[in-house]
Amino acid sequence: MEYKPKEVLLKNGTPCLLKSPGPGDASAILRLMSQTSEETSYMSRYADEIKISIHHEQDFLSSLLRSQKDLMICAVVDGKIIANAGINPIALYERYAHRATFGISICKAYWGLGIGSQLLSAIIRGAREMGYEQLELEVVSENERGLALYKKFGFEIYGTREYCFKYRDGSYASAHLMMVRL
Amino acid sequence: MEYKPKEVLLKNGTPCLLKSPGPGDASAILRLMSQTSEETSYMSRYADEIKISIHHEQDFLSSLLRSQKDLMICAVVDGKIIANAGINPIALYERYAHRATFGISICKAYWGLGIGSQLLSAIIRGAREMGYEQLELEVVSENERGLALYKKFGFEIYGTREYCFKYRDGSYASAHLMMVRL
Repeated sequence: MEYKPKEVLLKNGTPCLLKSPGPGDASAILRLMSQTSEETSYMSRYADEIKISIHHEQDFLSSLLRSQKDLMICAVVDGKIIANAGINPIALYERYAHRATFGISICKAYWGLGIGSQLLSAIIRGAREMGYEQLELEVVSENERGLALYKKFGFEIYGTREYCFKYRDGSYASAHLMMVRL
Repeated sequence: MEYKPKEVLLKNGTPCLLKSPGPGDASAILRLMSQTSEETSYMSRYADEIKISIHHEQDFLSSLLRSQKDLMICAVVDGKIIANAGINPIALYERYAHRATFGISICKAYWGLGIGSQLLSAIIRGAREMGYEQLELEVVSENERGLALYKKFGFEIYGTREYCFKYRDGSYASAHLMMVRL
């Protein structure tokens, strides 16, 4: 689904555009993925594991715009994509049609400005519009900012998975499983 | 990975062959999927949602035999495939390389003969051999036989997801999330 572009104001007064990225944003989205994967250990991949070609990402972003079950919204500040959030179906079988997964990433330099709340609020509206009944996510247990954001929007923890991530140094991170009914 | 074929005896004395299905078993595996999806409401799909072509299933089964991270083992009684079980990686990124998901299906006429235990025991050995550290699964909460089997092999519940399945009649089923360290 394509999100109708909307300008919002950040906590520091800076204007921020929320929009669905199109194929022309492919390289910016790939850069964002690499940067946010470098900045924390909360993402699913190491930055050097992001090996998606621009052409592939262009096709992927185009397919999201046409999809009735997927939605990506990015945040643009000063012409630069500095955050994005997305929902995807859990699975394409009927028994799962009411469930969507959610993920978000924000460049560290833009933390604390309310971008997470703006994106999550837009995503929840989009999820309802697409007919989903619930939104689910996993968050690394030590990611306190993420956890606080999700709780603010009604997500509740229904399980904690130990040994969720194993890092290259051999250490592990656990993750909370969270859900909100829409 | 290919499982080295092994004959075991069921509780009623019937011989049962455990083996990795090959491309020649594609139609039998598809029939098993349809039948087990008909027999209970514990599977991820309705039987009429299984629309895989034999050719596609042949390719899929061939790829599993070559894979270093996937394993499928089926149970053959009187020359007929009546159960299967499989493990697959959670995701192909490094942070997930220690985790595998597990699934199993057994034709109802063969319940209670110990086939689940034989398959799970073989799968756990295979998972260790492939270097996995933990095996994870989801089981519909009301599936008491499944739950008892998994607990017997050390799986523990770390969360319960409400509204996991939504059926065509509008009712829901919850699922327990379980894990065993290997």
